[in-house]
Amino acid sequence: MISRYDCQQLDAADPLAHFRDEFVLPEGVIYLDGNSLGALPKRTAQRVAQAVQEEWGSGLIRSWNSAGWMDAPQRIGDKIAQLVGANAGEVIVADSTSVNLYKVLSAALHINKTKKVIVSEQDNFPTDLYMAQGLIAQLGHTHQLKLQTQTQLLNAINDDTAVVMLTHINYRTGRMHDMRAITQKAHAHGALVIWDLAHSAGALPVELNAANADFAIGCGYKYLNGGPGAPAFLFVAHRHLAVFTQPLSGWMGHAQPFAFDWRFEPALDMTKALVGSPPILSMTALECGIDLWLEADMQAVRRKSLALSDLFMDLVAQRCAGFDLELVTPCSHDERGSQVSFTHAQGYAIMQALIAEGVIGDFRAPDILRFGFTPLYVRFVDVWDAVDRLRYILQTQAWQNSAFQKRSKVT
Amino acid sequence: MISRYDCQQLDAADPLAHFRDEFVLPEGVIYLDGNSLGALPKRTAQRVAQAVQEEWGSGLIRSWNSAGWMDAPQRIGDKIAQLVGANAGEVIVADSTSVNLYKVLSAALHINKTKKVIVSEQDNFPTDLYMAQGLIAQLGHTHQLKLQTQTQLLNAINDDTAVVMLTHINYRTGRMHDMRAITQKAHAHGALVIWDLAHSAGALPVELNAANADFAIGCGYKYLNGGPGAPAFLFVAHRHLAVFTQPLSGWMGHAQPFAFDWRFEPALDMTKALVGSPPILSMTALECGIDLWLEADMQAVRRKSLALSDLFMDLVAQRCAGFDLELVTPCSHDERGSQVSFTHAQGYAIMQALIAEGVIGDFRAPDILRFGFTPLYVRFVDVWDAVDRLRYILQTQAWQNSAFQKRSKVT
Repeated sequence: MISRYDCQQLDAADPLAHFRDEFVLPEGVIYLDGNSLGALPKRTAQRVAQAVQEEWGSGLIRSWNSAGWMDAPQRIGDKIAQLVGANAGEVIVADSTSVNLYKVLSAALHINKTKKVIVSEQDNFPTDLYMAQGLIAQLGHTHQLKLQTQTQLLNAINDDTAVVMLTHINYRTGRMHDMRAITQKAHAHGALVIWDLAHSAGALPVELNAANADFAIGCGYKYLNGGPGAPAFLFVAHRHLAVFTQPLSGWMGHAQPFAFDWRFEPALDMTKALVGSPPILSMTALECGIDLWLEADMQAVRRKSLALSDLFMDLVAQRCAGFDLELVTPCSHDERGSQVSFTHAQGYAIMQALIAEGVIGDFRAPDILRFGFTPLYVRFVDVWDAVDRLRYILQTQAWQNSAFQKRSKVT
Repeated sequence: MISRYDCQQLDAADPLAHFRDEFVLPEGVIYLDGNSLGALPKRTAQRVAQAVQEEWGSGLIRSWNSAGWMDAPQRIGDKIAQLVGANAGEVIVADSTSVNLYKVLSAALHINKTKKVIVSEQDNFPTDLYMAQGLIAQLGHTHQLKLQTQTQLLNAINDDTAVVMLTHINYRTGRMHDMRAITQKAHAHGALVIWDLAHSAGALPVELNAANADFAIGCGYKYLNGGPGAPAFLFVAHRHLAVFTQPLSGWMGHAQPFAFDWRFEPALDMTKALVGSPPILSMTALECGIDLWLEADMQAVRRKSLALSDLFMDLVAQRCAGFDLELVTPCSHDERGSQVSFTHAQGYAIMQALIAEGVIGDFRAPDILRFGFTPLYVRFVDVWDAVDRLRYILQTQAWQNSAFQKRSKVT
């Protein structure tokens, strides 16, 4: 049996422990939902205040140049590139993950125009599927979205496949795809691959170029700690840049936006993936989160992430056996992201009861309890305490309290 | 001749004068560029700090519900509706103006699918034309963008016209279209109209429903004082809502986003115009600007706006005659927005010299000096002082200083 003291010893030896001081963490809360909204870096509050008061308030319109607002999408993109195994000039920050998917999927279908099948996973994060459905309708239903289970996926890729569109790490189960193997198989059949890194960037070392990835998109507000609804990013492999074209051709993507010519002429670099003016206050917060990440060793992050999630799995097995929690996250390190999920018929109520006890994870319909592990600010002792409270709730059936039951109309 | 004292008297009698205290305005600057980036409301700095520290820092993921993040797009949209003559439920805040144009233009072409011509103005703000070009390419070049001069515009609307897409007030000249007459003409020919309110919302009373407008888009960071790159808005007339469909069908537009179904099913209300997660920090700043606007009487704003711009025109005529400034803004109140523009062959250098003297307007290629008048924080005496400095620069030819000359590579 693992003791709380064992966990304290692990924290004492943790080379990443000092990062916790960089974050604002509310008293009495164990936060295991950094995979949904990353915690606030302390430096961000100060930096956003400066952007508001000095850059906007005093600098006014001049700050587009003098405060570096104008090239923030490229500058922050180049920093994110370092976190996902890409080169400078291959990543840019813009819009939302959903909008960026529309851009890269449009571009990929345009490049691979003789083929008409998009292969994805039935259990992909829904917005990716929704955006593909919207694009297919927009293109006149000439394309088909083929959804597969995770196990059938590799076999479904064939010579008809135009694009394989996958989320690297599943939002419900935490299962990780083999980016290298799938990309290789797709390329062997002349297909292009889009990787959604929503649950990967900042969760573990991502090696887009080593995997020969074509396109990727990702989220700023989860592991990257960029703030609620932070702008997203997209990656286009350098070899595709010249032929990359996307339909949301706004002025920020123009070769010379301030020439105000009436004809659209795309920029030659990743700038052509931009559309309108970037939301600077949210961009500023995102950059703070990214800058903090650039100080961390991603290999050490991965080691601690696996140790935390292993510990969580082991403690639940030891201390919560017999309460019908079913693990749906792979035990194999090669197949696991940075979260652990269990199903339970009363998952919603249990999660509400846990949150009331100060352990914040989240519930994903229909029956998943999801716990995210963010090594920059979650300690081993937090894992121990979280499982201790989970055990208490299961043992006492505290979740049966009517306050924790699902209302009939859930949004 | 108008004296500076006359202007001081006008300020003393100004019923909107107290609003100036609501803004952060840097010492020594006369800011005539609020039509490009509105000034910072004092309340915004405090409110954004609260959103960062309390809502994000302490509330974490819970704030999507407890701090009202989730319904911010609808809530702020309903407030903007009050400023543009729309009803609650007809306006929503999302993405950028460019992205929103793509949505409403897609929707309008879908509704009016038997017709294939989009009529717009040659001198429309370029991003609107660029987005239309991107959409046309995406739809397989089945549609045509017909660009007209302002004078030919009404005649160009005929039975082939699917959509008339116009910016209500021209960004260069400040000339205002007759929203009611153009909409009426378009409807008489079975065409739909999209109004871009970038230079209208917060500049003067806009009456979308009184003009029977179909769709509109607008910008949060100009007259509305929502902050750099603030999220934009879109309007769909209630009569079109049921048939409104847009291709960027992301999860935030789903009827039940947290059911995580793989099939997209749009929300029944304006929520279906949403795509991804909204950038909350930027949304928060936008709402502060809007809340301030809701305290102002828009008729009084219009009266002062016209008085300020009349004064500017008169003073330039009186004090800067003989220096080759050519007025391109209409003198008629019915045709003027809230800016005054002049052409000058040395426009770029003159504007740089003016900025160096503390008068911030802006330059729009190829030769336009543009001055915006924002009645909530610009005084009559500011207009007098601005013209006084302009006169000084023209008389002394201070703009000939090499520091103010255009570099060969302009971005």
